[in-house]
Amino acid sequence: MASPTSRALLFIGRFISTPEPNTLSIQIGAILVSPADGAIKKVDWNVTDVESALKSFQLNASDVDVIQSQSEGFFFPGFIDTHIHAPQYPNVGLFGKSTLLEWLQTYTFPMEASLGNPSSPHYDPSLRPQPQTPSTSDPLARAHEVYTRVIRKTLSHGTTTASYYATNHVPATKLLFTLAHQHGQRAFIGRACMDNPETCPDYYRDPSTEATIANELECISHSHSIDPKRTLISPIITPRFAPSCLSRTLTALGDLSKSHSLPIQTHISENLNEVSLVKHLFPSSSSYASVYDTHGLLTPRTVLAHAVHLSPSEMKLISQRQSKISHCPASNSALGSGICPVRELLSQGITVGLGTDVSGGYSVSLLESVRGACLVSRLVGFTKRSLTEGGEYANEEKPDNQIPPPLSVTESLHLATVSGAKVLGLESTVGKFDIGFKFDVQEISLSNSANSNVDIFPWETWQEKVEKWVWNGDDRNVRRVWVQGRLVHEL
Amino acid sequence: MASPTSRALLFIGRFISTPEPNTLSIQIGAILVSPADGAIKKVDWNVTDVESALKSFQLNASDVDVIQSQSEGFFFPGFIDTHIHAPQYPNVGLFGKSTLLEWLQTYTFPMEASLGNPSSPHYDPSLRPQPQTPSTSDPLARAHEVYTRVIRKTLSHGTTTASYYATNHVPATKLLFTLAHQHGQRAFIGRACMDNPETCPDYYRDPSTEATIANELECISHSHSIDPKRTLISPIITPRFAPSCLSRTLTALGDLSKSHSLPIQTHISENLNEVSLVKHLFPSSSSYASVYDTHGLLTPRTVLAHAVHLSPSEMKLISQRQSKISHCPASNSALGSGICPVRELLSQGITVGLGTDVSGGYSVSLLESVRGACLVSRLVGFTKRSLTEGGEYANEEKPDNQIPPPLSVTESLHLATVSGAKVLGLESTVGKFDIGFKFDVQEISLSNSANSNVDIFPWETWQEKVEKWVWNGDDRNVRRVWVQGRLVHEL
Repeated sequence: MASPTSRALLFIGRFISTPEPNTLSIQIGAILVSPADGAIKKVDWNVTDVESALKSFQLNASDVDVIQSQSEGFFFPGFIDTHIHAPQYPNVGLFGKSTLLEWLQTYTFPMEASLGNPSSPHYDPSLRPQPQTPSTSDPLARAHEVYTRVIRKTLSHGTTTASYYATNHVPATKLLFTLAHQHGQRAFIGRACMDNPETCPDYYRDPSTEATIANELECISHSHSIDPKRTLISPIITPRFAPSCLSRTLTALGDLSKSHSLPIQTHISENLNEVSLVKHLFPSSSSYASVYDTHGLLTPRTVLAHAVHLSPSEMKLISQRQSKISHCPASNSALGSGICPVRELLSQGITVGLGTDVSGGYSVSLLESVRGACLVSRLVGFTKRSLTEGGEYANEEKPDNQIPPPLSVTESLHLATVSGAKVLGLESTVGKFDIGFKFDVQEISLSNSANSNVDIFPWETWQEKVEKWVWNGDDRNVRRVWVQGRLVHEL
Repeated sequence: MASPTSRALLFIGRFISTPEPNTLSIQIGAILVSPADGAIKKVDWNVTDVESALKSFQLNASDVDVIQSQSEGFFFPGFIDTHIHAPQYPNVGLFGKSTLLEWLQTYTFPMEASLGNPSSPHYDPSLRPQPQTPSTSDPLARAHEVYTRVIRKTLSHGTTTASYYATNHVPATKLLFTLAHQHGQRAFIGRACMDNPETCPDYYRDPSTEATIANELECISHSHSIDPKRTLISPIITPRFAPSCLSRTLTALGDLSKSHSLPIQTHISENLNEVSLVKHLFPSSSSYASVYDTHGLLTPRTVLAHAVHLSPSEMKLISQRQSKISHCPASNSALGSGICPVRELLSQGITVGLGTDVSGGYSVSLLESVRGACLVSRLVGFTKRSLTEGGEYANEEKPDNQIPPPLSVTESLHLATVSGAKVLGLESTVGKFDIGFKFDVQEISLSNSANSNVDIFPWETWQEKVEKWVWNGDDRNVRRVWVQGRLVHEL
């Protein structure tokens, strides 16, 4: 990563954030960011112009670069994508009518495999209607193209932090660390661990537990060679999901997380057939969550994606272990997985962030996830908790079928920023405009002249403008993006 | 409307359409459009360049204007929005946590009323958090601004036909006819008929059945003065919904539709509380659908919006009457109304189109409705048919809770074009690239250089590119739009 700017940065204008789930903070003021570490050094909510800000911060105009928000714009904390598969980016929007397990075999494993093995099928021709040949037979060149495009695209949508799943390959995964660091995106990167021959294709898995761990260590070492203090990028231990790993591999990965103080990410209870598969593969476990628990993977540093079909006792277990959940509404709707009962999870004291889950999710945009979280929260009251296909899970007591209050726009933005930060252990690092926080921020413009899809009328309040941004905004409204005070995207 | 172009138009390149629900037609060829009536005169799917097209059509280069699609682009039938409230456009994205009946009183009636009465409340200050003053006290100037913006915006998203609800006011409704015609959008326009004092605010309703009919006749007469043959614009009889009209008004509106051969649009079974209200207001009717039927409003020319909570016998009645349904997935999710069982409606032989339902729906984009229709069709299997709140409706036999096959992208695009045309009686007029059809078409560009949100990789097929357009496309991909051969939007 290039070194941060050498002059201090003075941001001035309108700052909007969601410090609490039900608080939309709209403030005019100024923020001073240090060039040394990209952190917020001073804040003043009583100044409205450059001159008074300089006076307040005891600075000369020559000491700082001044960045002002537009009259119809504001600064907003960068979005935090707690679940995204970088190698699946070319498949974004391609899933047909498939559901999870079929989708993995048809679309996902072949695409991921093509970043490591030139002879692997790009698609499985027997399953997918129109098989294609890769554009390049050099898998690392292909990985370079795919990873560069997904990083640039997510930054352009205001994603300042992403928790990426890479592929199973060591060289391509190392490349993702390098590229994320070069582009200045805050990233957690995990090699997708897969070594169970019963569930993983022969063309796409590690040969043994020992190979899995050796590959992990090589990736961790590469990450630390670039960013030893994990200032910007960090490895994350990534057993793809319980079915993809041998039982002893799951245990070894739990141990690795502990010995290296590394976070963990995996999937849980996304789809009813997947829940049945876990029950079949781990017959002695009482639940999907307990599989992770008994292998040392249910920790306060663990991010569990989806959690659509958890039983009440699993929610309780996850809450007790202080593990976190990544809610991926676009993916859950697109793959017909179901509706995650977010309000129930929150009421159990579980921390929930948002994930795009590209390419189970069809969009790289966290704003689309914010919309999706609001929308499915309005439909969850019409669903039945259909755990019956999950075998013994069905015997547990089910919650009442009362309609829970839907998520507001403010709550959903909170999930995409402050709560997402907490999911990834960044609650003291990003998501708020407070002293000591890193300046990971997007500048939003709602000017009608910017040819955006947000149409503002002169009588609207700023709360209403924010709601309009959420429902019709896109990357056209993201004017500039900073990570740790470094400008990483400009429209 | 300005007269059509005086030279013939030769369109050449890639033409994609969905002539049947499960057919994505992808053809290279040429189409000749007459300047006289904007209709397709000749089609040749065996030519690939201008020279051979001219030869095929026996024309000289000087006879025609040539319009070619881009190499990464295609021509696609214009979208048909079968349900949109023009005066609610400023509220797009503003609905908070409200559901239908509360939303009407809080957001909708005050906004609509402001286009007719300078002293009407813009918002109800007791209900909405931050009441605002209108930007102008001249309601017609305000209507001019709002209607111009909604027409331009929908055209820019590829909507060539819209079935608009206007407000209750005669002058503003007449203005909408005029503006739609000026901008060249194909439109059905209905004054929102409301005269039941029990359910409509005092500040926003007709005083009597007689006043309702007199106002209707004035609007119809204005429409016919502009476009006597209804070539481009047509009135549509619009009882807002059963609760908003007196029983004798509903009957009179049914008679008016019959005597003037005019289509009808209204709402049905959007929300469970609404269903209960109808039961309360029309205690002698056996169902919501039968209320319309007994008032002469359930005809083959009737467009019923929403239809989320129909009973099986209501579906059967609607099917028998050959009435049509406008499915509005964005609105149904946003207002938490529920999930419309589209597959069930289709299996009953009912014709279904898509509607944005601005501003119950948060987006003017039919592409967003296409996405929404796909997404909710993947969730409908998880819902319970909760008709119990609808009183006696609950006694009817309910369908099995089997998971119906989800809608494919192709099926959903078919709903937005060919099927939408049929909903509005335009099945022989628009939606296909066939001789005799009017050229109501959007030109789509997927070029990565166009700064769009659709990211194309070199190995993708055209079917895949269409799927990517559906899932990540927006107005940036709509390069040009023609209605009846007239260019009405250019990026």
